[in-house]
Amino acid sequence: MFDYPKFVEFREEGPREGFQIEKTLHPIEDRVALIDLLSETGLKRIQVGSFVSPRHVPQMADTGTLFERIRRKPGVKYTALWLNEKGFRKAQTAHRVDMDPKLLFYASNTFSLKNNNCTADAMRERQRDWVRLYKAEGLVPDTAYVMAAFGCNYEGEIAQEKVLDDIRFIQRLCAEEEVPLPNLALADTMGWANPESVKRMIGALRDLAPGVRLCLHIHDTRGLGIANLHAALSMGVDLFESSVAGLGGCPFAAHGDARAAGNVCTEDAVFLCHELGIETGIDLDTMIAAARKAEAILGVPLMGRVMHSGGLSRYRAPRG
Amino acid sequence: MFDYPKFVEFREEGPREGFQIEKTLHPIEDRVALIDLLSETGLKRIQVGSFVSPRHVPQMADTGTLFERIRRKPGVKYTALWLNEKGFRKAQTAHRVDMDPKLLFYASNTFSLKNNNCTADAMRERQRDWVRLYKAEGLVPDTAYVMAAFGCNYEGEIAQEKVLDDIRFIQRLCAEEEVPLPNLALADTMGWANPESVKRMIGALRDLAPGVRLCLHIHDTRGLGIANLHAALSMGVDLFESSVAGLGGCPFAAHGDARAAGNVCTEDAVFLCHELGIETGIDLDTMIAAARKAEAILGVPLMGRVMHSGGLSRYRAPRG
Repeated sequence: MFDYPKFVEFREEGPREGFQIEKTLHPIEDRVALIDLLSETGLKRIQVGSFVSPRHVPQMADTGTLFERIRRKPGVKYTALWLNEKGFRKAQTAHRVDMDPKLLFYASNTFSLKNNNCTADAMRERQRDWVRLYKAEGLVPDTAYVMAAFGCNYEGEIAQEKVLDDIRFIQRLCAEEEVPLPNLALADTMGWANPESVKRMIGALRDLAPGVRLCLHIHDTRGLGIANLHAALSMGVDLFESSVAGLGGCPFAAHGDARAAGNVCTEDAVFLCHELGIETGIDLDTMIAAARKAEAILGVPLMGRVMHSGGLSRYRAPRG
Repeated sequence: MFDYPKFVEFREEGPREGFQIEKTLHPIEDRVALIDLLSETGLKRIQVGSFVSPRHVPQMADTGTLFERIRRKPGVKYTALWLNEKGFRKAQTAHRVDMDPKLLFYASNTFSLKNNNCTADAMRERQRDWVRLYKAEGLVPDTAYVMAAFGCNYEGEIAQEKVLDDIRFIQRLCAEEEVPLPNLALADTMGWANPESVKRMIGALRDLAPGVRLCLHIHDTRGLGIANLHAALSMGVDLFESSVAGLGGCPFAAHGDARAAGNVCTEDAVFLCHELGIETGIDLDTMIAAARKAEAILGVPLMGRVMHSGGLSRYRAPRG
């Protein structure tokens, strides 16, 4: 039952997740300043932006320029998202992108159709092409995602077996292509997970793929983000994707309200870990400063909690 | 480990917690409409307001008028808070207040001094006076609270022993005064609890006072509200105080930022329970409508999640 990891890694997605859904383009200097501040927090991986169609996502059109202007901190990886080969090539030729090869699987066929204009089965086969392309470029997949792993606004409940079937496919694919098994990430982009479904799914994955590092990509759509993250911590999961100030959301996920909460909030999750005695390598106060900068840039109240209340260290007596 | 209750009761505090900290007085018709809508949710207890000094808390000056104007739903209790005998007498003589006698204990002496202008020890003795006054009026204490049970912005960490000592005092007091032991509530008004400290404290209380109904008054100050509530659920706790849309906060708790989150959000907590298969008697969609009304009245984005995203039932296939 009590099986917390000693150290948890957070991969920061705020600069992409947060700004890709904005209606207005925010000045590039502001976004550079936010990333530079995030570099000072102790985070080891920051997703700067995405190389996607500027026609579909004009907010990400200047990702290449962002990479030119940010101040790099040694030991921090600055990554980007791409969704097709054109984007991948852009990332390769952009200024010093830390290549972060992902594989994307869909537990929901409809969500795959909406996001990728192809079935979940076709998407699987495309991942084989990605593995081969990555190999040809001297890369190996870092993380394989199962999207809509807990439920889908289009298909409803997702049977656990669908997720496990994706995992089995990933295992076969990696064996056939002779690449090491990547981290396995469960994505709850549409906010269907609850602490029990998280524990059940992680238990099933541990049985199926023992020893593989698991990752959770959690959204706080329905307020269970931190509780779900805590459930995963209690199962020993030590890798999470999160967003400063809880930035983000999924513009294609058919929510009724544009203000639906985004990713689980990095600094709130870091606060939880520290309170539980789990190390993160992250300085909470600097993380809070980054969250407040994000709020200042966006000009609207953001949904993080600790960014508004502060942590607890200032109230505690110094430990001798 | 898996010890969820079958049914959980939520006591709604939003109408008091939410409006007592507002800088402006909101029209009474709006507050009546909010309470009337809350009456339709299935909630069985709604705290309408408080009978406190209109000089200190002018927002609550018209609590008596609220009681006159609300539309009562049979089976719902409409309660009020008081902090001294004058307030208690006002509640007695106001129009149809469902008397809800509380006892208040403070695990933090400094917090007691700030809130009550008396020490925690003196506050204990005052509770004896309250028990006698309630008895004289034919009432018994419903719930005894230990405030700052998990930590205090003035005193830092609160030793579990301090809370247990309060509980022992309550047990002695009730034995001496020959009244039944009330529900025992732990209040985390300043947001110090985490899921592990909640579980440890509840375990200790169950050992000390087996069979007594426990209650949690949780604030979401640092984003752990729902995770803490989940931890309590997993220990079988079946009574929570919460606020629609996460309204509230504690104006005297020395937070750095007035926008610090308030009480744990009723509809988010209800959503969690329903996802876990725990009944609440509350209709989530009506609860969401009440949260949206609260947001419309206050005219600022409120911090509830489900109120913006909606629940999941509309995405699920009807169960046959």
